[in-house]
Amino acid sequence: MLVKWEAGLMAYTVAHKLIADHRLEGEMQPGAEIGLRIDQTLTQDATGTLAMQEFEAMGLARVRTELSAQYVDHNLLQVDFKNADDHLFLRSAARKFGLWFSPPGNGVSHPVHMQRFGAPGKTLLGSDSHTCAAGSLGMLAIGAGGLEVAMAMAGEPFYLKMPQIMGVCLTGKLPDWVSAKDVILEMLRRHGVAGGVGKIIEYYGPGLAELSAMDRHVIANMGAELGATTTVFPSDEQTRRFLRQQGREAEWRPLQADAGADYDVHETIDLAAIEPLIALPSSPGNVVPVREVAGRPIYQSYLGSSANPGLRDFGIAANMVAERQIAPGVSFDINPTSRQLLDSLIKFDLLSALLAAGARLHQTGCNGCIGMGQAPATGRISLRTVPRNFPGRSGTEEDAVYLCSPETAAASALTGVITDPRTLDRVYPRFVEPERLASAADVLQPPEEDGAAVELQKGPNIRGLPALEPLQDEIGGPVLLKAGDDVSTDEIMPAGVQVLALRSNIEAISRFAFSRLDESYYERAMEYQRHGSLIVAGNNYGQGSSREHAAVCPAYLGVRAVLAKSFARIHWQNLINFGVLPLQFRNPEDWQRIGQGDVLEIKGIHEALRQGDELRANNRTRDEVYLLRHSLSERQIEVLMHGSLINYVRHKHAA
Amino acid sequence: MLVKWEAGLMAYTVAHKLIADHRLEGEMQPGAEIGLRIDQTLTQDATGTLAMQEFEAMGLARVRTELSAQYVDHNLLQVDFKNADDHLFLRSAARKFGLWFSPPGNGVSHPVHMQRFGAPGKTLLGSDSHTCAAGSLGMLAIGAGGLEVAMAMAGEPFYLKMPQIMGVCLTGKLPDWVSAKDVILEMLRRHGVAGGVGKIIEYYGPGLAELSAMDRHVIANMGAELGATTTVFPSDEQTRRFLRQQGREAEWRPLQADAGADYDVHETIDLAAIEPLIALPSSPGNVVPVREVAGRPIYQSYLGSSANPGLRDFGIAANMVAERQIAPGVSFDINPTSRQLLDSLIKFDLLSALLAAGARLHQTGCNGCIGMGQAPATGRISLRTVPRNFPGRSGTEEDAVYLCSPETAAASALTGVITDPRTLDRVYPRFVEPERLASAADVLQPPEEDGAAVELQKGPNIRGLPALEPLQDEIGGPVLLKAGDDVSTDEIMPAGVQVLALRSNIEAISRFAFSRLDESYYERAMEYQRHGSLIVAGNNYGQGSSREHAAVCPAYLGVRAVLAKSFARIHWQNLINFGVLPLQFRNPEDWQRIGQGDVLEIKGIHEALRQGDELRANNRTRDEVYLLRHSLSERQIEVLMHGSLINYVRHKHAA
Repeated sequence: MLVKWEAGLMAYTVAHKLIADHRLEGEMQPGAEIGLRIDQTLTQDATGTLAMQEFEAMGLARVRTELSAQYVDHNLLQVDFKNADDHLFLRSAARKFGLWFSPPGNGVSHPVHMQRFGAPGKTLLGSDSHTCAAGSLGMLAIGAGGLEVAMAMAGEPFYLKMPQIMGVCLTGKLPDWVSAKDVILEMLRRHGVAGGVGKIIEYYGPGLAELSAMDRHVIANMGAELGATTTVFPSDEQTRRFLRQQGREAEWRPLQADAGADYDVHETIDLAAIEPLIALPSSPGNVVPVREVAGRPIYQSYLGSSANPGLRDFGIAANMVAERQIAPGVSFDINPTSRQLLDSLIKFDLLSALLAAGARLHQTGCNGCIGMGQAPATGRISLRTVPRNFPGRSGTEEDAVYLCSPETAAASALTGVITDPRTLDRVYPRFVEPERLASAADVLQPPEEDGAAVELQKGPNIRGLPALEPLQDEIGGPVLLKAGDDVSTDEIMPAGVQVLALRSNIEAISRFAFSRLDESYYERAMEYQRHGSLIVAGNNYGQGSSREHAAVCPAYLGVRAVLAKSFARIHWQNLINFGVLPLQFRNPEDWQRIGQGDVLEIKGIHEALRQGDELRANNRTRDEVYLLRHSLSERQIEVLMHGSLINYVRHKHAA
Repeated sequence: MLVKWEAGLMAYTVAHKLIADHRLEGEMQPGAEIGLRIDQTLTQDATGTLAMQEFEAMGLARVRTELSAQYVDHNLLQVDFKNADDHLFLRSAARKFGLWFSPPGNGVSHPVHMQRFGAPGKTLLGSDSHTCAAGSLGMLAIGAGGLEVAMAMAGEPFYLKMPQIMGVCLTGKLPDWVSAKDVILEMLRRHGVAGGVGKIIEYYGPGLAELSAMDRHVIANMGAELGATTTVFPSDEQTRRFLRQQGREAEWRPLQADAGADYDVHETIDLAAIEPLIALPSSPGNVVPVREVAGRPIYQSYLGSSANPGLRDFGIAANMVAERQIAPGVSFDINPTSRQLLDSLIKFDLLSALLAAGARLHQTGCNGCIGMGQAPATGRISLRTVPRNFPGRSGTEEDAVYLCSPETAAASALTGVITDPRTLDRVYPRFVEPERLASAADVLQPPEEDGAAVELQKGPNIRGLPALEPLQDEIGGPVLLKAGDDVSTDEIMPAGVQVLALRSNIEAISRFAFSRLDESYYERAMEYQRHGSLIVAGNNYGQGSSREHAAVCPAYLGVRAVLAKSFARIHWQNLINFGVLPLQFRNPEDWQRIGQGDVLEIKGIHEALRQGDELRANNRTRDEVYLLRHSLSERQIEVLMHGSLINYVRHKHAA
């Protein structure tokens, strides 16, 4: 294919066009490292306090992007001074470094960014795994670790391996009671949580015509759950309509794949054939038809999050419960996703309908989706429109969170049991989007003209980053944790009220590393903090969020290498950025030969990495040898040699 | 005076009439114990889980009041399963025992109870110190420990010492920019946090005519901060207007003091002379004019709580910020106090105005007032319309919470500094109450016809009450804590997210006893759990909330007696109910002679209590003797002899 591209013979996909427009380095050949120019960045508070400190460490006066925005949407509960202090720090950093600032109460980063700043043809890098949601507008929007985003803010290229492009052709039209959430659940049903790894998913075809930009947001957002690098949609009349609705039609431009565009992987979905779907606990990939689990009693029905953030998502639920009462004993939790949405719910009489039916309104933000409140009762089912149901992410250890559409959530709130909305035996109360939206969104604070005089406000919980040492030529130590497949960053570094408040304090938050998997991990790791230790894992290690704490904290605790069958993209990059060597088993079956506590030894690392040779881990406990490979670029090897990306950049700037 | 009453010669106050109408035992002579018939009870979730278990322990099938209501308003954050489990337990208990149930999201108990159930001439006992707010409607509404309320639910009389009646004559009319909150702050400025101890405060006079029932709620609610037994207002045209607004005019009846009513204590306030006032950290009694502290930068401006719950309170703030923007960087937190209020804010276009100005909307409930979120940043000023600013109650240890009116809070949100609203230089945008309110309140769940078949739902964190032993004749042990004046129940047993979630688990929550004052207390107490220990305190010990955990946990930890200069009423009763002997120094200066760690010994307790003699504490460490007195009724002595009120009631029923 490389030949075709270079000869200009190729029919480009939307993804190709976006990449070609922003490519600074490398070739558009799947697997090759490419460097992209980043137009916009997005940071949220849970990842932003580190990102801002990383940017500060680079010594630049001002961001070098077209637009950077700092959102506060995660840590909103403020049970003590820590989160409030973080908010003040982030505001001061935004003012100092020239970012837009979206204060608490303004909304979830993804819908707000889409509404205010989304523009077809642009690149967006965000320190949140659901940044990909902006692909709904024909953007190339990628989630990454905070340090990657800080680099982009500094004007550096963003590096990634050129993904494969998976073309998903949509045909037909969604039936009544079925909506965009069911489309992405269908993708998860077919492909699982690793089905998108190494791919950009691009939707096209006649089925797109009736999917609004916000419907596409739902589908693009949860591309993260497929493990995809990102998701893209073309920019068409629906895109234009969305921007018009936001009063920003001037920023519209068309963006379509060339006729006969050359996708690496092909998929087709007949929208008319989709039925209401639901992901069972505790993975977004456990998808079955709602009818198969109908009748199970629920404790909670939950609307909100970046996975169903649109006016339609709340509007259809309001239409369904209007003039009715939800089942007694059900907690029907409404989580507005932006100030604009909340204002629209008020103006279009939807909020009153929800409240009169017995709904419980929460503050605007990520809330229960990230374990900040609304944890379900012991052993009770929680139905949510959120993107993830990893174990314990709700805040309740033995939780039972199901992921579904607003239609299924509202139907179940009315009956008190999991309910296929088609069985309600009434006319589908379709929600019609208004042509223009109420706009109470203008409380975003624009960048200062000159932030030089602004002082960074660091409360007592905002500590610096740990110093990291260059990669040693020889790594040895015990395997302090042996994990299975699909370990998420929620298990590596939990979220929730108590832990998230420590995001600016690596020493303190490290106490919770792997605590979901093994409560003794922290103490055992501290014993080996200086000497070093290793982690062994199965497939898709580090799936889920972009939180770089899942790499920083193990690095701080002395983890020198992670040996896995395979890695999730963002976490793999985060490990490299913080000097932890990610290696893959040549023979995946070696995984089962290693026991927790075994002492491993890897020698001659520097030369092997630079020569592209395989590495060998000697298991001193069992007297065995395992072959290990890596897929590091030369640049990534240099980063590791310096001990971290920050060390590497400092070295580069000093040179 | 007794003679006058008995001869029927006395001119009754409203308080006298309410008491006379409900008196079952005792004489209406200040200081004498009286037993009252209780018409209605109110429990909230933070005190309710114990109260319901206490009621369960009594073995009755159904409450014996005219009306009992269980609210869920405190523990709404749900960071794990515990609070959600508590909510389910409370709903099951309400269904089983015949109570109304107000689910989470429905509102703060005090305004909801007033709106739905408040009725002139009734008595109300509530396991929340601000139950007195219902005095606004001409009710005798008293806060008490959960066990007292459980007794009332069982149809038992409520016992208290006949208070003095303090008549406060209101004249004149409030100036622009001054509202009901400033009236109660003026009372606190004059009388301090113990000024109401042993008193019922009764307002009367021509100034009442323009104070709406909800204005009176503001004043009655914070009578708790004066230490008053309760506050009462007459029932007049304003009361009628309120009930009409709620669609309940039929429940109105007039209730006025007799001409020339005989108050025990006299006070007069000229409303026209009041200016905007503010309580400085960290006591509601530290009141100064706003102008004296104007100009201090604020982090937060906070509307809500039972101290300013009315539509007017939010409406005036909305009118003030409409078409304006709040100062950047200020967190302007809106905490709706009931579903009805929230619905009215929507219907009357007030919520949109607040949101457009940059406000942050939170869920309906007690929220930050009880330390459930919204904690301020380190060292920053938080302005709140809430009733209390005890140290650390906000969730931030070294907090700086100021209490003020909605006018002062809104003015300061606009400027970013503490602002006397009169200095805004504009016309007072007076809020006019609508004649009828929107009614989305009807999600209260009525009592079941027959709850016998309902099973109580107890999650794993809902544990039983500790067994308590009969009072020993000889108490001896070390003084494990020596405290000063005005120690609040927030210091004895903190609130906040982490601790409140443990309200149903005495063993676990006891770890936090006195942790605000002394982090080593719990460990030291556990050493003496079996042997026993004592606490020494200054004046007004146990002020603040009604939480009986502040008595149950010390009892569980082995505290046998508290020696204080004086006690706050509810906590004093709670100590008795859980078998801890409350004694007062005969010579208050003895307090300073005792050191923490001194070993005290009190002998011959049983006989001394029954004979009414003074007790003597021998300080074995210093070889000194202190005289101690008590003000226990015969009934209370019997309760102590049995070790707890539950033991006493069980014994009584068995006999």
